Amino acid sequence: MSDNQHIINEYPLLAHIDDPADLRRLPVEQLPAVCAELRKFIIDVLSQNPGHFASSMGTVEITVALHYVFNTPYDRIVWDVGHQAYSHKILTGRRDRFETNRKFGGLSGFPNPKESEYDTFTAGHASNSISAALGMAIATQVNHDATPRNVVAVIGDASISGGLAFEGLNNASINNSNMLIILNDNDMAIDENVGALGEYMAHLTTSKRYNDFRYKAYKFLRLHNLVNERNKGAILRFNNSLKALISSQQNIFEGLNIRYFGPFDGHNVAEIVRVLRDIKDMNGPKILHLRTRKGKGYKPAEDDPATWHAPGKFNKLTGERITSDSTGKPPKFQDVFGHTLVELARTNKKIVGITAAMPTGCSMCYMLSEIPERAFDVGIAEGHAVTLSGGMAKDGLLPFCCIYSTFLQRAYDEIIHDVAIQNLPVTFCIDRAGLVGEDGVTHHGAFDMAYLRSIPNMTVASPIDEHWLRDLMYTAQLRSEGPMAIRYPRGSGVLPEWRNDMHELPIGRGRRLSDGDAKVAVLSIGPMGNDVQKVVKSLADEGIRVAHYDMVFLKPLDEEILREVSNRFSHVVTVEDGTVCGGLGSAVMEWLNDNSHNHVQVHRIGIPDSFVAQGSVAQLRKLCGMDNARIAAPIKELVIQKELKT
Amino acid sequence: MSDNQHIINEYPLLAHIDDPADLRRLPVEQLPAVCAELRKFIIDVLSQNPGHFASSMGTVEITVALHYVFNTPYDRIVWDVGHQAYSHKILTGRRDRFETNRKFGGLSGFPNPKESEYDTFTAGHASNSISAALGMAIATQVNHDATPRNVVAVIGDASISGGLAFEGLNNASINNSNMLIILNDNDMAIDENVGALGEYMAHLTTSKRYNDFRYKAYKFLRLHNLVNERNKGAILRFNNSLKALISSQQNIFEGLNIRYFGPFDGHNVAEIVRVLRDIKDMNGPKILHLRTRKGKGYKPAEDDPATWHAPGKFNKLTGERITSDSTGKPPKFQDVFGHTLVELARTNKKIVGITAAMPTGCSMCYMLSEIPERAFDVGIAEGHAVTLSGGMAKDGLLPFCCIYSTFLQRAYDEIIHDVAIQNLPVTFCIDRAGLVGEDGVTHHGAFDMAYLRSIPNMTVASPIDEHWLRDLMYTAQLRSEGPMAIRYPRGSGVLPEWRNDMHELPIGRGRRLSDGDAKVAVLSIGPMGNDVQKVVKSLADEGIRVAHYDMVFLKPLDEEILREVSNRFSHVVTVEDGTVCGGLGSAVMEWLNDNSHNHVQVHRIGIPDSFVAQGSVAQLRKLCGMDNARIAAPIKELVIQKELKT
Repeated sequence: MSDNQHIINEYPLLAHIDDPADLRRLPVEQLPAVCAELRKFIIDVLSQNPGHFASSMGTVEITVALHYVFNTPYDRIVWDVGHQAYSHKILTGRRDRFETNRKFGGLSGFPNPKESEYDTFTAGHASNSISAALGMAIATQVNHDATPRNVVAVIGDASISGGLAFEGLNNASINNSNMLIILNDNDMAIDENVGALGEYMAHLTTSKRYNDFRYKAYKFLRLHNLVNERNKGAILRFNNSLKALISSQQNIFEGLNIRYFGPFDGHNVAEIVRVLRDIKDMNGPKILHLRTRKGKGYKPAEDDPATWHAPGKFNKLTGERITSDSTGKPPKFQDVFGHTLVELARTNKKIVGITAAMPTGCSMCYMLSEIPERAFDVGIAEGHAVTLSGGMAKDGLLPFCCIYSTFLQRAYDEIIHDVAIQNLPVTFCIDRAGLVGEDGVTHHGAFDMAYLRSIPNMTVASPIDEHWLRDLMYTAQLRSEGPMAIRYPRGSGVLPEWRNDMHELPIGRGRRLSDGDAKVAVLSIGPMGNDVQKVVKSLADEGIRVAHYDMVFLKPLDEEILREVSNRFSHVVTVEDGTVCGGLGSAVMEWLNDNSHNHVQVHRIGIPDSFVAQGSVAQLRKLCGMDNARIAAPIKELVIQKELKT
Repeated sequence: MSDNQHIINEYPLLAHIDDPADLRRLPVEQLPAVCAELRKFIIDVLSQNPGHFASSMGTVEITVALHYVFNTPYDRIVWDVGHQAYSHKILTGRRDRFETNRKFGGLSGFPNPKESEYDTFTAGHASNSISAALGMAIATQVNHDATPRNVVAVIGDASISGGLAFEGLNNASINNSNMLIILNDNDMAIDENVGALGEYMAHLTTSKRYNDFRYKAYKFLRLHNLVNERNKGAILRFNNSLKALISSQQNIFEGLNIRYFGPFDGHNVAEIVRVLRDIKDMNGPKILHLRTRKGKGYKPAEDDPATWHAPGKFNKLTGERITSDSTGKPPKFQDVFGHTLVELARTNKKIVGITAAMPTGCSMCYMLSEIPERAFDVGIAEGHAVTLSGGMAKDGLLPFCCIYSTFLQRAYDEIIHDVAIQNLPVTFCIDRAGLVGEDGVTHHGAFDMAYLRSIPNMTVASPIDEHWLRDLMYTAQLRSEGPMAIRYPRGSGVLPEWRNDMHELPIGRGRRLSDGDAKVAVLSIGPMGNDVQKVVKSLADEGIRVAHYDMVFLKPLDEEILREVSNRFSHVVTVEDGTVCGGLGSAVMEWLNDNSHNHVQVHRIGIPDSFVAQGSVAQLRKLCGMDNARIAAPIKELVIQKELKT
């Protein structure tokens, strides 16, 4: 049986949907069947090819309804945090390539405009969809498009709590564009006991009767002097647009100019279609509130959506996740961080832990459960996480603020303005630093070393292994001033026996891991030093002895090492898991020039000055010229050159 | 008459207030007189020593009441955007130094923890106060302080619209700390016709009766099926905590757990004192809404608060501002930008202008008034400004997004994620790049070249003068893809005749401004090139001919120039108005190493790797080793060395 025949047998409707126009030719009555096939397809593929599961299972009906009602790709769907968008990918011409999802050379795990015209905007970092969609909605007005585009942002209840989303909402409220915001609310399970009243209310919101009720309520409040033109802001309290509140631009139920509809059942595709058709041509910004369940349609995921966010491979029949035995293997850096933080915090009562919506991913969960009064998950709010840490540090606490490298970009100004200027003792634990693999272009932690190095007062370090991570954390909590960043990658370290007795490290001091007689020294920072060690050993087998230094600190640099290297070697190879544009290699060059040692030539190995797509870390290292062969190449070349010369 | 006697005569109360404890010894009846003296003092000093005027005039009573009621400095006042904090400085031991405000070696124009223990947190960038104050409020809990500190954030109605403030509010709402947020609402003038009702309402909010009314209103809504446990979120619409809305954690009038009081007259000091005393010991987060008038107490400023935001020197009796005649002088870069944008936008209908709350400062005001349908001021929301630009560019527009360098730090992630990854044609017009002078440490545009250079796909340029600014803008709007940054400083250029016929510039091409036979070449970027030209001319008088290249582009670098320089010179001096840590000098070193020209030694002149305080630009250049003498020094030294060697 051909693949094609297999698809036709298993997914009789989906097999004939090569793009949304095919979907739109179906009668609405068939949409629930399409949804069921989509769920089956996602389960079939993801059980074999790991990806984000629960979120996409929750948005099947929303996706089908949107492509059914709107004229995509001319109309724009902007997904917020795109791992909810698998159904979207499957319906928009990528069904047959879907098993390459998140793989090297395959489909991106997030919407990617380079991949499809249906993917309207980059969607790896949360909370950007409203702003981007508003930009598109304004563009269709400014362009005077003969047929104005409809623009829809789809945002989850967690993403909408980010400051960027608030800024977008606030600005949308004073703009007359026709943008529609879909709030995909999967925070609470849908209450099965909803009953008639809820349904009734939901219908009311789009009806004339709703407006009558609104008017009556308003009159009641006025009658009791609880509202008047000047003080209605006071009555209503905060409203998401405080600006609107203050300037009295609101009425009782529409604090923003954004018309609100809902909540509706986000798994009733016919109802969503009906509502979308009702409201799509209404003027002005609109929000449609849909309640969904993460993992919908797959019981194990519905019961434990956190675990099934990205479950890895699983047995689709039993729901058993296929995990490899990790006994005796090195732990994840994340777990070492999480356990070590608890260990330190038990002794040092000034330590607090802060994370921004990633307690499980970064392992702050241990401190949240064991010392909850000193652990804080602030939600998707990286800027706030950093400024909050600054305020805590100002009054004597020692915050360990743990954020993924790529998301910490959101807090760049806060690091400078709210921490570094005041030289406050905030420790930034920068998770997912360097190439992260399958999450791809939006998620690599490529820039943190470059952007942190330019900030005065910063100390920047990266451990080569679990013991050094622990020692760096131990050292950080002994400080009474000055921010310190400790960056480490996603995934496992190298030491199964990771619990060492921690001790204080001298700031700005690296170490020599091997000495050599070739004319070249390798300077590395972070766990890539382990790869360099492998290269050094393999070169030793070829009779080439290479000096290798683990710098440990990017800032301040170990000047003793640099002096030694300048005096003994003519070439330096720098190795870092970050952009070469402004990173370790550049820092070394700066020192060499400042100290008149620029005769030493620096060869930089790291992430090149371009955006890197998804793949395994090994594949991406190779792509970026960061694999062991490419670390060895310049060394061998230099040695051979030297030999030819001598 | 001694200075001291003068102060006692002119300000009989203020003269005896050396710190807030002195203030607290006065009876509350005398506070209005203190406020009057403070206003007089601010007018007297600022008419001679320019500073931020209208904001601080509006917060006199708030400041007096806060220091009167709270036990500062033990209790914490966190000012948001600190140019409202002059009264605070005067009351906290800095009265006699206040005339040094914003001057080199004098007081900072913003709260500065290095300057006084009363200045609790850095306050140059908007919207950070709630997060910082929350951090302090948590710290007093975690520290188990015997007397818990009171923590007060004072934030304006514009600042509270920033995403960071929203993130702070959202997080405060789920925290049981006793923080008080003062909303200083000066957006609307206080309506003189308020009448009894408004006053009544204001009192109601703190009274039992208010709660009774609230309960009645709630019952009414339930009776009409307009609210129930599940849908009350839907009824209330957006509420500033959408999270709270969704999770049904709210009641009708308190969508957040933040208790709200107000609005009250922010110029009635006795009333503010009364309310503060009423609410200060209430548990949980609280917000107090005070209405104030910018410029209060000085008629010209009340009538035109925008002009009087920072009016410069003025005649305090007549209200006449003392401005120098600018006829025939070079215009500000800002005005060249503003007028040129309108000129380009008239021809190119795809151009749109975006700014974030700085339309006057950056001169987007011209486009806002002349082509309002294509000009957007999004308020204090830099991240949104950039993502919005990304969305617009995605659908065919050519956004010119104009933000001050130091504030663009807030949008670092959005530049990467929402523009650069997609290679969208957004032009970033980066105003206030480099040292800005009197605004000081929080406002220097020191980092943009370093942080933008590391971003793939970015083009980064800086014009030496007004003609080059216009040509760069002209060039930017011809592009159909790729972000481009154009950075220029605060203040005047050099060309009185600034309107040239614009033409397209080749990307990544600089030019030689002078040739030389010394062994050193100077590479500069931006208007500091004019200073280098002066140095070159003065060295020529001493018989030293120095080559000087204006790079124009930081990224991509002009490799033709770099090849020429490498072949002809042994030393390069780089000159830039930005941090030397990762900027032009580092970029040049990277190229030299990559191309085996590292024999050329690079000497970097620019902002050093430390935070720089306030002063005139000339004073700060000297401080930073960026003045003409320091540009000349390494050149002369090298020439003399070379002569000795030959």
